[in-house]
Amino acid sequence: MTTGRERECWTYLVQQLGRSGLTLSVAESLTGGRLADAIVTVPGASAVFAGGAVTYSERAKIFILGISEQLLDAGGAVQPEVAEQMAEAARRRFDTDLALATTGVAGPGPADGHPAGTVYISLATSGQTRTEAHLFTGNREHVRSATVSAAAVLLERWLDQDRQLG
Amino acid sequence: MTTGRERECWTYLVQQLGRSGLTLSVAESLTGGRLADAIVTVPGASAVFAGGAVTYSERAKIFILGISEQLLDAGGAVQPEVAEQMAEAARRRFDTDLALATTGVAGPGPADGHPAGTVYISLATSGQTRTEAHLFTGNREHVRSATVSAAAVLLERWLDQDRQLG
Repeated sequence: MTTGRERECWTYLVQQLGRSGLTLSVAESLTGGRLADAIVTVPGASAVFAGGAVTYSERAKIFILGISEQLLDAGGAVQPEVAEQMAEAARRRFDTDLALATTGVAGPGPADGHPAGTVYISLATSGQTRTEAHLFTGNREHVRSATVSAAAVLLERWLDQDRQLG
Repeated sequence: MTTGRERECWTYLVQQLGRSGLTLSVAESLTGGRLADAIVTVPGASAVFAGGAVTYSERAKIFILGISEQLLDAGGAVQPEVAEQMAEAARRRFDTDLALATTGVAGPGPADGHPAGTVYISLATSGQTRTEAHLFTGNREHVRSATVSAAAVLLERWLDQDRQLG
């Protein structure tokens, strides 16, 4: 279930994507489908949303998205480079203009030496891939919801401002 | 966001899977990530849940999961055979013991000649693939949530009863 505010936000984004003729896909680790769900909640999302990969296990990251096993072995799943590779792989595999990716520690408790709330979000476009680091507070559900909201902000900022910059 | 009742339900299922040493993946069309999200909401889900494919577009069904293009051309995405192929593909690609898949019409309005609320859910196991047909009433959000609940019931029934039958 998505809150009213979130629904408004994603409705705006789906409409903006539609007006621009841009398509979107996602690759999710800690959000585990919640990002895709927020998009699909918007009626007519199918005009812009192709789909997503929920790569929750390390094996899925490697075999479904082709994330570098060496990278995962060296530093685990919670790294900016993993988010970046996930976004770029989704963009390629779903053949979309844009792709959002999330990786991080939902909690409870730390994982891979990172505190709960450590999150990396990437947006891959034709020009470049932007990656943001966050440290969210709150419980598992809050961290996962905050990640979906932050992904919306990243996409919105690119659509409204950065797009002109390439 | 998942309701308290749903969280209880998926917590039970994740525990049952864990006790049985069974792993799970999903392939989602109309639920669009909500099924994966319901599972990942449970702390410790990573012990049993590998991930999922949200194949919202027809192209994603073909290229990400390998669903038969002929089948989709002939009858569209809302057919029991599509749910069946999606579940079997997820089980294979994520290398899990079990896989759940959903396809159908969330609405608003009919699609592909099927009324909103027409839903097929499949559970692929090592033995066979079970597929159920549903006709849910209510709006887009209700249809999508009802589908996630019905998928939980299908999995629960198999874990509690049908498993002995193979």
